[in-house]
Amino acid sequence: MDGGRFAVKRTVGEKVVVEADIFTDGHEVLAGRLLYRKEGEGDWTEAALEPLVNDRWQGEFPVAELGRYLYTLEAWIDAFETWRRFLGKKIEAGQGVSVELEIGAELIRAAGRRAEGAEAQRLAEWADSLAGAKSQTRAAALALDPELALLMARHPDRRLATTYGRDLAVVVEPERARFSAWYEMFPRSCAVEPGRPGTFKDCQARLPYVARMGFDVLYLPPIHPIGLTGRKGPNNSPAAAPDDPGSPWAIGSAEGGHKAIHPQLGDLEDFRRLRERARELGLEIALDLAFQCSPDHPWVREHPDWFRRRPDGTVQYAENPPKKYEDIYPLDFDTQDRAGLWAELRSVVLFWIEQGVRIFRVDNPHTKPFAFWEWLIEGLKKEHPELIFLAEAFTRPKVMYRLAKAGFSQSYTYFAWRNAKWELTRYFKELTQTDVREFFRPNLWPNTPDILTEYLQTGGRPAFMARLVLAATLGSSYGIYGPAFELGEGRAREFGGEEYLDSEKYQIRNWDLDRPDSLKDFIARINRIRRENPALQSNRNLCFHEVDNERLICYSKRTKDGSNVILVVVNLDPHHSHTGWLNLKLEELGLTGETNFQVHDLLGEARFIWSGPRNYVELNPGLVPAHVFAVRKRLRTERDFDYYL
Amino acid sequence: MDGGRFAVKRTVGEKVVVEADIFTDGHEVLAGRLLYRKEGEGDWTEAALEPLVNDRWQGEFPVAELGRYLYTLEAWIDAFETWRRFLGKKIEAGQGVSVELEIGAELIRAAGRRAEGAEAQRLAEWADSLAGAKSQTRAAALALDPELALLMARHPDRRLATTYGRDLAVVVEPERARFSAWYEMFPRSCAVEPGRPGTFKDCQARLPYVARMGFDVLYLPPIHPIGLTGRKGPNNSPAAAPDDPGSPWAIGSAEGGHKAIHPQLGDLEDFRRLRERARELGLEIALDLAFQCSPDHPWVREHPDWFRRRPDGTVQYAENPPKKYEDIYPLDFDTQDRAGLWAELRSVVLFWIEQGVRIFRVDNPHTKPFAFWEWLIEGLKKEHPELIFLAEAFTRPKVMYRLAKAGFSQSYTYFAWRNAKWELTRYFKELTQTDVREFFRPNLWPNTPDILTEYLQTGGRPAFMARLVLAATLGSSYGIYGPAFELGEGRAREFGGEEYLDSEKYQIRNWDLDRPDSLKDFIARINRIRRENPALQSNRNLCFHEVDNERLICYSKRTKDGSNVILVVVNLDPHHSHTGWLNLKLEELGLTGETNFQVHDLLGEARFIWSGPRNYVELNPGLVPAHVFAVRKRLRTERDFDYYL
Repeated sequence: MDGGRFAVKRTVGEKVVVEADIFTDGHEVLAGRLLYRKEGEGDWTEAALEPLVNDRWQGEFPVAELGRYLYTLEAWIDAFETWRRFLGKKIEAGQGVSVELEIGAELIRAAGRRAEGAEAQRLAEWADSLAGAKSQTRAAALALDPELALLMARHPDRRLATTYGRDLAVVVEPERARFSAWYEMFPRSCAVEPGRPGTFKDCQARLPYVARMGFDVLYLPPIHPIGLTGRKGPNNSPAAAPDDPGSPWAIGSAEGGHKAIHPQLGDLEDFRRLRERARELGLEIALDLAFQCSPDHPWVREHPDWFRRRPDGTVQYAENPPKKYEDIYPLDFDTQDRAGLWAELRSVVLFWIEQGVRIFRVDNPHTKPFAFWEWLIEGLKKEHPELIFLAEAFTRPKVMYRLAKAGFSQSYTYFAWRNAKWELTRYFKELTQTDVREFFRPNLWPNTPDILTEYLQTGGRPAFMARLVLAATLGSSYGIYGPAFELGEGRAREFGGEEYLDSEKYQIRNWDLDRPDSLKDFIARINRIRRENPALQSNRNLCFHEVDNERLICYSKRTKDGSNVILVVVNLDPHHSHTGWLNLKLEELGLTGETNFQVHDLLGEARFIWSGPRNYVELNPGLVPAHVFAVRKRLRTERDFDYYL
Repeated sequence: MDGGRFAVKRTVGEKVVVEADIFTDGHEVLAGRLLYRKEGEGDWTEAALEPLVNDRWQGEFPVAELGRYLYTLEAWIDAFETWRRFLGKKIEAGQGVSVELEIGAELIRAAGRRAEGAEAQRLAEWADSLAGAKSQTRAAALALDPELALLMARHPDRRLATTYGRDLAVVVEPERARFSAWYEMFPRSCAVEPGRPGTFKDCQARLPYVARMGFDVLYLPPIHPIGLTGRKGPNNSPAAAPDDPGSPWAIGSAEGGHKAIHPQLGDLEDFRRLRERARELGLEIALDLAFQCSPDHPWVREHPDWFRRRPDGTVQYAENPPKKYEDIYPLDFDTQDRAGLWAELRSVVLFWIEQGVRIFRVDNPHTKPFAFWEWLIEGLKKEHPELIFLAEAFTRPKVMYRLAKAGFSQSYTYFAWRNAKWELTRYFKELTQTDVREFFRPNLWPNTPDILTEYLQTGGRPAFMARLVLAATLGSSYGIYGPAFELGEGRAREFGGEEYLDSEKYQIRNWDLDRPDSLKDFIARINRIRRENPALQSNRNLCFHEVDNERLICYSKRTKDGSNVILVVVNLDPHHSHTGWLNLKLEELGLTGETNFQVHDLLGEARFIWSGPRNYVELNPGLVPAHVFAVRKRLRTERDFDYYL
């Protein structure tokens, strides 16, 4: 973590395992402690540090509460244990130890002076017995007694202890920061009647549909008034007709800015009711933080200095030639009135926190300063450690990771564009088996309103199913943009692009949720499997297994205690059936080579008896392109039945 | 390097290549510089930093002088280049750029104000031309002119530049720190007549013998008076006879301590003559720094507080039960008189520096504080940057590496115990292909007076030859303890141990240097090959190649410019002939698959025409157990001869 500059991340109830190289010159025995505390609270709590091998030590501590914890290390030369081992070797070699016993008695007396009460007395007595022992055998027994070793370990001489010299931080977040299923939906498309703009009330009526699919975060694109100046029409056409609703990301009009609600959606009261009803159904509402303005945003008038001006006096709109976004003014985070701008943006988040929002999806965080996000998130979390921020950081890898270090709880990833086995394997090893996992929590989206991948455009329903299984089982957090996803919407505006045809970003869509080919039941099943199988609620345990077919990918997840093991096989080819032989890493499944075991397909309910590492699979994408197996170790044998007795 | 706490190492004339991740939020173009300077000297010199890929940047600077260099990085947003690319895209898209040209003219004017003289004027003129350009075509040509880009790059606005925030260090040492061949020899065994203790004069007579073998460092075990108390007899027997010479590492007697010379060897004048004569023959004398005392050392009397006392008033001698070293008193580096002890030890090194010694082999550095070595070596090198310290750090890996970070130029390694192909490959990849190579320079010893490996005990002459080739070609620095090595001394004191029978540590040996089976000519040839082939003078370029026989190991070394390529194959089995097919990584040899090439065995003078990656080898250990090939790319064809014309 850049030498301790940034915090690692955990969720409530997890453990933090700390490893360190601890050594010194010479041959003395060392001892050490892991020190930890909640930030802002008093004394360090101590946890054991135990040597592993090759001067590597390990300790762990629990993080039971939301917020920031600090930890550091302390180690010292353990004079008593050094003496004890030395004595043991001399006795074993049959050498005289009378002087050693004197040295030991003095070490014990000194420990007694550091101790108090009964333990002080016990140590003093022990020292006297040792000094007065009549025979070397008796003295050795006294000196090497494990009870003494334990007692001495409780009162070490730490005056010359070395500390790590830096307090490292852990940010502890709610469980949903680690394990979550997101559903993105445009409220204005929620009306049942075609043509009418949906409202929060329509949105509320849609909640049971979303909840039945098993999601736990409902993410709404910006709900604020939309600017008129430069408004885009359907399919991003530069001229909007009077009825065109415009992009929700062109925030702000005469009706208000980032703290206002689009009048067509309803009012604050409607929003609060929506949020409350959602929570009753297990859904947390996530709002979009898009820190940019339409030219009609009140800030443009009230704070002209928050925007970058061109020599001709106009405000610089967003553009990436040849593309122009005349409906968007970026904020100038380096404005002279930096303090004013930053405080106002913070007050936007606080406003929605007051309305009960706890999860925010942040639009394009990579075009705003890292320092702003660190300041904003760390500051808000002091009062509200339950907040979750998802970074829409579709940018270069190092910038993406830097934003995670700045404090974002979760991040979008490159998942949408990783389709082949080799690239999925390489990417997810990077995310789950390197230091990245300490600070970066992937949230996997097969689609978003901006991203309709070629794979989904060309693969049909099997492609949507395969990508759903991958997203929901490779990652403990994932999300879909619906109803486009469950209805298999695969039509792009133009070949070679990733924009949806008739994108909801620019127009209202009316979706037929009851279409028989909807994936809603399949999604509901996947989400139920995720909830019922703790192995799928973490990413640290991901393990890939070999398959002798490049179109089949196989991986497993397992809880630390081994009580839950999930094995997934996905056919990545949406067009053809594929067969293959798995070569399973049995130890990663908690199995040994000799055992037969059962795999129970939680998608199709089929059960197979497998044996050893090599097992056969066959997946027809026209039916279900994946197996999600629960691995059940114990098979019954003749000895389990009455007739055997 | 522990976050910049320690220096990396280079030798005079090398380059330091620096890589860094440099990025910021947003889409602006960045620029950066690598800054470097000699420590203690004035301003930074700037070197270019160029982007590689994925936000990774690279620069390099030369280290032409001995001593410490510092370097750091600076980077900033390049407003002009950002503008220039943006403008280019707008022009390409056929969009109007009049306002952009105004912005650009102002950027150029500002750069002109930062510049001086002719360049200031040139920039001002350019800005005027741009502002006054009659047509967009003309303006674009002016704005995008590469000459302007170069001029602007010379005057960037660095007011908001970000610096790395830490000055990193490079220690630059003499070439011999990287490329050296050591010979260890007991002076007292140098007399021609059996029985008579050798003197420095005998040693001097032996110099041509050592020089002819091609070594460049002659390392002498301690040359100081040897204590009588607790003196060990032959084969480490606890009781010495009156004539037994004792271990040279039991330093100090009534005749003096670490600054004195053993009277039987000669006097300071003899030593200086030896050193001078050695230097004439290309040999640098290395002395042993063994900071410990015999009980008769003057310090024991003069500074009783420099030694740890036991409750019975005796000094604690060295012991590792059941072993006792009653002839050795360790120094107590944590004594109350730490300043006095450390200063005296420093004065010992300075004393020998005054006698012209520049290389020190340090005995058991891992039993003395890391802080002592850092203080000692860094301090001495301020005045004497030409010093070289070799750490006899036979200890755990992390302690070994920590000593290298503390400043030792070279270190002993685990090479002596790495005999199989898999363990040699793994170990040398760690040493040469990880960060270890930045601070740790291995010095490979197949034997030392303490280490006669089982491989040498059991493998006979072929084993000595194979280990010599491995040491001399796997490592750019290596050493042997002779004449035991070249005479193939393989007799151990006891089976299962590594001590020599009749070890020179405890008795004087008389060696027959003219024995016909001596390896001296073979060694001379190896050392000549090392001198003549720069590829063997560095370790960074080591590359292993596959062989389909576990007893054959194959690796290559290549100079950066590709002008010298050495390919080595060694038969690790001293008892049997082995054959195998190599699978060469041709690109690592600077070859392409189609080319035929010649390999010229520099040991046996045989030449082979090879083709492609797969080539056959056959090595009979009874003859020579290794090939050391020079790879010669160019083969002559019909077009090279007259009759073709």
